[in-house]
Amino acid sequence: MPRAREINIKIGRLPTGKYNAITDVKGVRVGHVSLIEGENIRTGVTAIIPHEGNIFQEKLIGAVHIINGFGKSLGLFQIQETGTIESPILLTSTLNVWKVADALIDYLSKSNPEVYSFNPIVAECSDAFLNDALRRYVDKEHVLRAIDIAKSGEVEEGNVGAGVGMRSFGFKSGIGTSSRIISTCDGDYIVGVLVLMNTGREGDLKINGEHVGLKLLNKDTETKKRSLEKGGSVIIVIATDAPFSSRQLTRIAKRATFGLARTGAIAHHFSGDIVIAFSTANRIPFKSEKIIMNVKELHESVITDFFEGVIEATEEAIINSILQSKTLAGKDGRVCKGIPVDKLIEIMDSI
Amino acid sequence: MPRAREINIKIGRLPTGKYNAITDVKGVRVGHVSLIEGENIRTGVTAIIPHEGNIFQEKLIGAVHIINGFGKSLGLFQIQETGTIESPILLTSTLNVWKVADALIDYLSKSNPEVYSFNPIVAECSDAFLNDALRRYVDKEHVLRAIDIAKSGEVEEGNVGAGVGMRSFGFKSGIGTSSRIISTCDGDYIVGVLVLMNTGREGDLKINGEHVGLKLLNKDTETKKRSLEKGGSVIIVIATDAPFSSRQLTRIAKRATFGLARTGAIAHHFSGDIVIAFSTANRIPFKSEKIIMNVKELHESVITDFFEGVIEATEEAIINSILQSKTLAGKDGRVCKGIPVDKLIEIMDSI
Amino acid sequence: MPRAREINIKIGRLPTGKYNAITDVKGVRVGHVSLIEGENIRTGVTAIIPHEGNIFQEKLIGAVHIINGFGKSLGLFQIQETGTIESPILLTSTLNVWKVADALIDYLSKSNPEVYSFNPIVAECSDAFLNDALRRYVDKEHVLRAIDIAKSGEVEEGNVGAGVGMRSFGFKSGIGTSSRIISTCDGDYIVGVLVLMNTGREGDLKINGEHVGLKLLNKDTETKKRSLEKGGSVIIVIATDAPFSSRQLTRIAKRATFGLARTGAIAHHFSGDIVIAFSTANRIPFKSEKIIMNVKELHESVITDFFEGVIEATEEAIINSILQSKTLAGKDGRVCKGIPVDKLIEIMDSI
Amino acid sequence: MPRAREINIKIGRLPTGKYNAITDVKGVRVGHVSLIEGENIRTGVTAIIPHEGNIFQEKLIGAVHIINGFGKSLGLFQIQETGTIESPILLTSTLNVWKVADALIDYLSKSNPEVYSFNPIVAECSDAFLNDALRRYVDKEHVLRAIDIAKSGEVEEGNVGAGVGMRSFGFKSGIGTSSRIISTCDGDYIVGVLVLMNTGREGDLKINGEHVGLKLLNKDTETKKRSLEKGGSVIIVIATDAPFSSRQLTRIAKRATFGLARTGAIAHHFSGDIVIAFSTANRIPFKSEKIIMNVKELHESVITDFFEGVIEATEEAIINSILQSKTLAGKDGRVCKGIPVDKLIEIMDSI
Repeated sequence: MPRAREINIKIGRLPTGKYNAITDVKGVRVGHVSLIEGENIRTGVTAIIPHEGNIFQEKLIGAVHIINGFGKSLGLFQIQETGTIESPILLTSTLNVWKVADALIDYLSKSNPEVYSFNPIVAECSDAFLNDALRRYVDKEHVLRAIDIAKSGEVEEGNVGAGVGMRSFGFKSGIGTSSRIISTCDGDYIVGVLVLMNTGREGDLKINGEHVGLKLLNKDTETKKRSLEKGGSVIIVIATDAPFSSRQLTRIAKRATFGLARTGAIAHHFSGDIVIAFSTANRIPFKSEKIIMNVKELHESVITDFFEGVIEATEEAIINSILQSKTLAGKDGRVCKGIPVDKLIEIMDSI
Repeated sequence: MPRAREINIKIGRLPTGKYNAITDVKGVRVGHVSLIEGENIRTGVTAIIPHEGNIFQEKLIGAVHIINGFGKSLGLFQIQETGTIESPILLTSTLNVWKVADALIDYLSKSNPEVYSFNPIVAECSDAFLNDALRRYVDKEHVLRAIDIAKSGEVEEGNVGAGVGMRSFGFKSGIGTSSRIISTCDGDYIVGVLVLMNTGREGDLKINGEHVGLKLLNKDTETKKRSLEKGGSVIIVIATDAPFSSRQLTRIAKRATFGLARTGAIAHHFSGDIVIAFSTANRIPFKSEKIIMNVKELHESVITDFFEGVIEATEEAIINSILQSKTLAGKDGRVCKGIPVDKLIEIMDSI
Repeated sequence: MPRAREINIKIGRLPTGKYNAITDVKGVRVGHVSLIEGENIRTGVTAIIPHEGNIFQEKLIGAVHIINGFGKSLGLFQIQETGTIESPILLTSTLNVWKVADALIDYLSKSNPEVYSFNPIVAECSDAFLNDALRRYVDKEHVLRAIDIAKSGEVEEGNVGAGVGMRSFGFKSGIGTSSRIISTCDGDYIVGVLVLMNTGREGDLKINGEHVGLKLLNKDTETKKRSLEKGGSVIIVIATDAPFSSRQLTRIAKRATFGLARTGAIAHHFSGDIVIAFSTANRIPFKSEKIIMNVKELHESVITDFFEGVIEATEEAIINSILQSKTLAGKDGRVCKGIPVDKLIEIMDSI
Repeated sequence: MPRAREINIKIGRLPTGKYNAITDVKGVRVGHVSLIEGENIRTGVTAIIPHEGNIFQEKLIGAVHIINGFGKSLGLFQIQETGTIESPILLTSTLNVWKVADALIDYLSKSNPEVYSFNPIVAECSDAFLNDALRRYVDKEHVLRAIDIAKSGEVEEGNVGAGVGMRSFGFKSGIGTSSRIISTCDGDYIVGVLVLMNTGREGDLKINGEHVGLKLLNKDTETKKRSLEKGGSVIIVIATDAPFSSRQLTRIAKRATFGLARTGAIAHHFSGDIVIAFSTANRIPFKSEKIIMNVKELHESVITDFFEGVIEATEEAIINSILQSKTLAGKDGRVCKGIPVDKLIEIMDSI
C-alpha cells in the first residue's frame, strides 16, 4: 500500500519533514504492538514517547482540544489545568483504555519512586466492528512492550498498534502520520501529526478536495443516506519542536479540525474526536530549586504558519491512515475492505 | 452575480429550503442598511430578527461557539450562561459594534419598560480595507432602520449591510446565506445559515473541494507564501426550527467550523470567527407564573443530520457571499475585485 | 462521632431532608466497601447509584464542573458533551480509578448486551498518606459489591468506602453528606450532596465561619506557613429531583465552590476538586422510537434557591465528613487524628 | 468611614502591601470620575491603567474567569484567546459599557495610528437602583478624564467612579481594594485586587467569617427569605508583578471565587461576576523583530501562595468596598444606607 505522496497526492503547499511523520520532531518515538489472533482478536496499542528522558520529571508543555467529546480518553483535563504532559501518550481501543492506563502507572512509578500521582494519557477509538472488544485483550505486557520498542525514524502506518481494528468512510483505516516544515526568520521548525483514524461515513471521503468516496464504492448519492457507523472517533496527536505556551498549543490543536473537515468527516454524534498537542522545546521540571523559569515562546505573529502546517499534516495523516491499511477480516466473519488503490489512482488521474 | 446553484455548484446532498436562505426558518427576518458614500464610506449594518414577537419577553434558546476568539463581538458569554438570546442579532464592522449595541438598548428598552438589563448581540468583521473604519459611520438611525425593514423571504447577499466592505480569499465578499431541509421520522426541519464573510488568504479558495483560488487569480503556488490579510473574520449565524437545548445547539454551532474549513479558510491568528445559533422551537418567557416548563427537545440520535445540514449550508453561504459580491472601490482608491464568474464557470466545467 | 447538627452546628437557613443526605433524593442509593487490613491497606470504594433502573438505558441529565483540574477522575468530558450520565458514580482512591472503571465495564455490559461503548464515571482523591497506594487494592469484586449493597436511607459517613484514607485540614476525614429542601410555588424539591473530602491545610478549617482550625490544633498563626499536604482533592456529587437542563446543572455545580470556600479550603495546586451533578427528574432513553422528547425544566428564575441549597449542603457535607471520621493509623505507622469533638464543642459554645 | 484594618478586621495571614491596594503593583494606576448630580444621576467610571507605557504596543499577559456569566462586560473572549490585555480596564455601570468602549477607541487609536482593531476592556455592574440608568450619563470626556487622572499610591474607595451607585448585602457599597505580599525564595511579589462590588442579599453579609448581616440590619432569619436584589454583580480585577502565563493567571483568577464566597455572596442568577487578571512582569510587543521571546514564568510549585493571596485580598477588598461607602440617596427618593460602622465594631468586639 502506498502513502499519499507515492501516488502523487500532494496535500497543501508546505514541505514535509524527512520521514513525513511525527518522528520528524526530534526525540519523538512511536511503538506499536498489534494483536491479531484467531478470528476475534483485532486490536492493539500504540505508544508515542514525547522525549528521550523521564517525561514525569521533565514534563513538556501540552494542550488538548476536544472536537467532539463522545469518548473515554484519559488524562485530558489535567493537561488543560497544568498545561503539561507527564506521561507517554498511549492509543488503544475504547474498552482497553483503563487497563492501559493502569499499566502505565507501573511504568511511570518504576522510574519515579516516592511519587503517588501520575496522569497517564490514553486515547481511544472503537474497534468493535472487527474485534471482540468486550474482552479487552490489551494487557500490561503489551503496553510496556509498545513503550519499549518505540523508535524514531519511519513510522509504520495502517493496520498496526491501536490501528488494527479501525475503519473510516467505509474503508479499512488505522494509523497515519505526516509532518510539515515551518520556515521562520528564526529558522525551521517541524510540526508532526499522528492519527488513529476511525470515523467518516461511507461515501463521504474526500482526498485533496476530490469527492472520491462514492466513486470508489461504486455507489450513487442516493445510497448515501444511511446511519453513520457507530463507534467512530479519531485521535489526533500533534508534536512540534517550536516553543509554544499551552494556550498557543490549544489554538494550534483546534486547527486539526480544519484538516479533519477536509477529508469529509463531520464529527458525528458518536465520534469522539480528540486532539492532543505538545511541544518539545521547553522542559518543565517536576521539582525545581529555581522558581523562576525562562520559557521560550514564539511570538503570536508567526502562529498562523503553524495553523496551516497542522491542517495540512492532519489531512495527509488521515489519508495515509486509509491508504496504508489493507483489507482485514475479523470478528464474526466480518471483512473491512482496504481502499482500492488502483481505482483511486485512476480517478485522481482523470481529474 | 449568480448564486452558487445558479451556476451549477451544488454543495452537499441535502435539499435546500424554498429561498435557500436563513429566512427559510419561519419567523426569521433579515434587514440591511448599506452605507456607500463618497470615496471613504463603505460600511453598513445587518439585522437578523429571530422571531416576530418581543424577543426580550420571549427569549429563544441559543448558543455560541468561538472558532477563533480574536474579535470584539458583543453579548456572547451571557448566551453561554443563560442559554438564551434576548436581542436581535446585529452584524456590522469592527469598530461600530459598541455604537450599534448602544443603539440596540434604545430599541429594546422602548418596548420593555422598567427593564434595566439587556444583552444586545452584535458581531463584527473589519472593513478597514475599503472603509474609513476609525470614523464609525454606523449610527443609531441605521440600526433602527435595519431592524425596521427586516423581512422574510429572499435575502439580499453580497455588498449589502454589514457586508459592504468585506473581502475574502483576495476577492470581494459580503453577506451570504443558504439553508437545508432535514427530514426526520417526525417531519421536516430547516437549518438556515447566514454569514458575514471576511477571511481567507489569496489563492486559498476552494469551491466544493476544487482548488480554484490560484487559477482564478492567475497565480502560482510560489506567490501563495505571503502574510494573511489583516482584520479577517467570519460571523456565522445559524437558525433552526428544530427544538434543541443550548447544549445541543452548541454542538451544532461547532460544526460550522467544518463548513468553513472546506472553503480553504484556516482561521488565521487575526481572524475572529464566531458562530451564533438559535432555535425558534421553544420560547422562554422572561417572567413566568408557572415555574415548570415543558421544553421540546430532539433526541440526540438525530443530531448528526443537523450537523451535516449546518456544514453544507455554511459552505454554500460562504460561496454565495463571494459569488454575490461585485467589484467595489473605496478608501484611498483601493479596489477589491469581485470573483471572475465567467472564468470560474469555465474552470468548474473543465473538471 | 456526631454529625454537625447533633452538636448544634447549623449551617445556613434552609431545612434539610429526612436523612440530611444525598439519599433524600428519591432513588439515589449509596454503597461503601471499606478495605482496612493489616498496617498498609487503608482504602475503599463508594458507589452512588443514580436511580433504580438501568442507568445506561435510561440516562439522567448531568453536568460537571472542574474547580481545579489536577486529578484523574474519569468520564467527565463525555458528561459535558452529551449532558447525561449513563453509569453509577464510583469514588475511590487515585491510583485505583482505572481498575474501578474497568470493573464497571463488566457491570454495565452485563445488563446491556450488544453495547460496546460505556462511559464509566469514577472520581478520586489520594489516600497515599495512610494507604500503600501504589498497590491498588481495590478489585473488581469490591466494585461490584459496593454497587450491590448500595441502599437508600441513612448514609454511613467518615472512614468508609473511598473515605477510609482521607484527611483534611490536618484531621482525619472521609465521606460526608447533607441535603436541603427547596420550596417553590410548585412544591418542594431536594438537593443532596455527598463529598469525598481530602483537602485543606492544617489550621485553615472554618466551621460555620468560625476559624477553629488553629485553636483545635493548639497552634498559632506562625506555624501556618507550611507546605500544603500533597495529594489533596475533594469530590462533590450533587443530586436533585428538580428538573434542570445540563446547562442549569452546570451552573448549580459551580456553586459547590462557594460551599467549599467557606470551610477554609483554597483548591491548592495539587488539589483536584471536581463536582458532578445530576437530576433524577427526566430520563433520557438510550434509544427512542419518538425523536421529540418533552423535557421538564425549571424556569431560571428559581435557580438561585438551588444555588443556595447546594452551597449550604456542600459546606455541611464537608463538616460532616470530618466530624464523622475517627482517628486512624496506617502505612508506616502514620496516624491521622480525628477532630477533637469535645474541644470543638467547647470552642463553638464559647463564641 | 474606616477601612477594615482600621477597625481591627484582619483578614487572613499574609502581609499587605504599602497601600493595601491594587496600586501596590508597580505601574498600576487608578482613576475615578464620579457623576453625582441632581436627584437621578448616580453613576461614574473607573479606569485601571496596567502600566506606564503604551498598553497596545506593549501588551501584558492576562486572563479572565467568568464566575457567573450574566453580564455585559466587553473584551473578555479576546483576552482568553490571545492571553493578553491591550487596553486599560474600565469599570462603569451596565448600560454605559458600550459608550465607554467606544470612547476607549478614540483613546487607543490616538496613540496607535494605522491600527484598526483594538480590544477595549470594559466591565460593569448595574446602578439602576439609585441612578437613572437608561439615560447612560457616562460620556467620552468622563472616560478620557478617568484615564488621565489615574494615579498610583492610595486608591479612593466607596462611592467613587463606577462605585457611585452600587449596593451589596442591603448596604451601600462601591469600589474596594486590598493587596498581599507573597514571599518566595526568589523574593517578594505583590498581588493586588480591586473590586466593583454590587451583589449579595440582605442579611447574608459575613465579615471574616462572622454572620454579621442580620444583626446589623436588626432582622431575624425569617426575613431572610426574599428575592435577591436585581442587577447584582461584582467585578474583580487582579494585578500582580509575579511572572505568570495566561493559563496560570486563569487559575489565580478562579480563586477570587473563594474570597467572594467568604463574604456571603452566592453569585445569584442575575449576578454577573467577572474576574480579570494581569501580570506586569512580561511585556508582549505588538510587533516584534525577534520572533522568539524569553518569557519569565514562575514554577507551578509556588502558585498556591498566590491563590491564598488573591483569596484574602478579594475578601478584604469587598469588605473595604462596603465599609468605605456612605449612605447615598438617589433616583425616585431612594436611599441606600451605609453599613453602621459603630454597631459593626460593637458586634465584632463582642465575639
